[in-house]
Amino acid sequence: MLLIGERISVISKRIGAAMKERDAAPIIDMAKRQAAAGADYIDISIGPASKDGPELMEWLVTQVQAEVDKPICLDTTNAAAIEAGLKVHNGQAMINSTSGDVERMDSMIPLAAKYGAKIIGLTMTDKGIPRDANERVMIAAEILGRCMVEGVSPDDLYLDPLVLSITTAQSLQPPKETFEALTMFRELSDPQVHTVVGLSNISNGAPSKLKNMLTKIYLVFLMNHGLDSAILDPMDKDLMGVLRTSEIFRNDTLYFDSYLDPYLED
Amino acid sequence: MLLIGERISVISKRIGAAMKERDAAPIIDMAKRQAAAGADYIDISIGPASKDGPELMEWLVTQVQAEVDKPICLDTTNAAAIEAGLKVHNGQAMINSTSGDVERMDSMIPLAAKYGAKIIGLTMTDKGIPRDANERVMIAAEILGRCMVEGVSPDDLYLDPLVLSITTAQSLQPPKETFEALTMFRELSDPQVHTVVGLSNISNGAPSKLKNMLTKIYLVFLMNHGLDSAILDPMDKDLMGVLRTSEIFRNDTLYFDSYLDPYLED
Repeated sequence: MLLIGERISVISKRIGAAMKERDAAPIIDMAKRQAAAGADYIDISIGPASKDGPELMEWLVTQVQAEVDKPICLDTTNAAAIEAGLKVHNGQAMINSTSGDVERMDSMIPLAAKYGAKIIGLTMTDKGIPRDANERVMIAAEILGRCMVEGVSPDDLYLDPLVLSITTAQSLQPPKETFEALTMFRELSDPQVHTVVGLSNISNGAPSKLKNMLTKIYLVFLMNHGLDSAILDPMDKDLMGVLRTSEIFRNDTLYFDSYLDPYLED
Repeated sequence: MLLIGERISVISKRIGAAMKERDAAPIIDMAKRQAAAGADYIDISIGPASKDGPELMEWLVTQVQAEVDKPICLDTTNAAAIEAGLKVHNGQAMINSTSGDVERMDSMIPLAAKYGAKIIGLTMTDKGIPRDANERVMIAAEILGRCMVEGVSPDDLYLDPLVLSITTAQSLQPPKETFEALTMFRELSDPQVHTVVGLSNISNGAPSKLKNMLTKIYLVFLMNHGLDSAILDPMDKDLMGVLRTSEIFRNDTLYFDSYLDPYLED
């Protein structure tokens, strides 16, 4: 599993203020803690950042990578900000994200090709959320085809089947549509694409007492269907314990008696 | 999910002593608590009970069913004790268990036919544990065939793919052999057979700090592969919360904000 730490986001009160004030310390601290907890990529979400996006993203990537030896997942709809981040990035960055919109593919996929970055592809368009697994696969094929034309390998594409909140979407669309999409995505190409989700979406709108349970059990279902990357909170020890246990049952890793030690609460 | 409460067992110190002394109160109390917690069947495990098996099982079934309105899962290798329990049982009992051994099928399956009971079929023989999903299915077909000859409907057969402890068996046999067996069992007949596991086996030999995590995540994997019955501890609230959450992601039930309330610790 490739883990993308979600904790550096403009919608976090503390991190959002630090971004605004160009106060690097709390941002670097959060990057370090996520890296120590097992994040492979550090997501940096700045929202649309229509005013100062490029300058902000360049500053963030430079500050974080000066202190933390991890690649960054550049998270904004602002393509100019993405490119500003890519220009100063060390290692292989990840672009978060393109969708199936032609305009967004036009702006994002060539950047992935130019800078050799990985890219997340949301299987939705401006017409909205796909109705089932088949519609997701149709959009996935659009994104994959465009990647191949531009010279982005399927191995650098992370398709997101879109997680809808269980609180509102279950009666419209059973959860299995997302699970089936994961399986179908992997059959699209050789080399296979990767798959990714924004995990916390599953519990949007649920009472806080339910969020942990919904998130962790949903992760197990997704991993059972072959998910190989997730945007999540690596500092959530219970969630990480669930993830490591699922890796054992997938036979990704072997059981040993102390495997859970880093994640057991004192 | 059909839930079989595992807590009335001769290997429990307190329950074992109560069985020996014919002290019904603690046994009835444990049956009541499991029924209140959601058990559909109450397992009564008396071991081989070579000396007084029939008399003991008759006493246990009579005592428990006088106070608790649930059917019993009669758990012993002693066929005479099974029949003694069946004779006094109200409702549809469950026999735990036959295996693929000819001798055991000879003794157990006709009893299921005669008394209209459900029966658990362990997919193993006296030659030992099957090596993979295919060997499990070969034994399953033997058991199913014999059931059909004797007049036991596939709908009354609960095939157990055998859960091996993750601590010792993972390198010999990846967990997916058990998962795949669940899927393959359901393809054997129409009406389909049911599937069942003794859940706690997965963590045999693991340090106690790991048992809960291994058991609950394994349950999610099994449910994702269609498991529709389990022998487990219905009084384990965390495990039951995991089970109810998995039922939502399987779309067996619909999410509602208070679905977890009975299982949240105070």
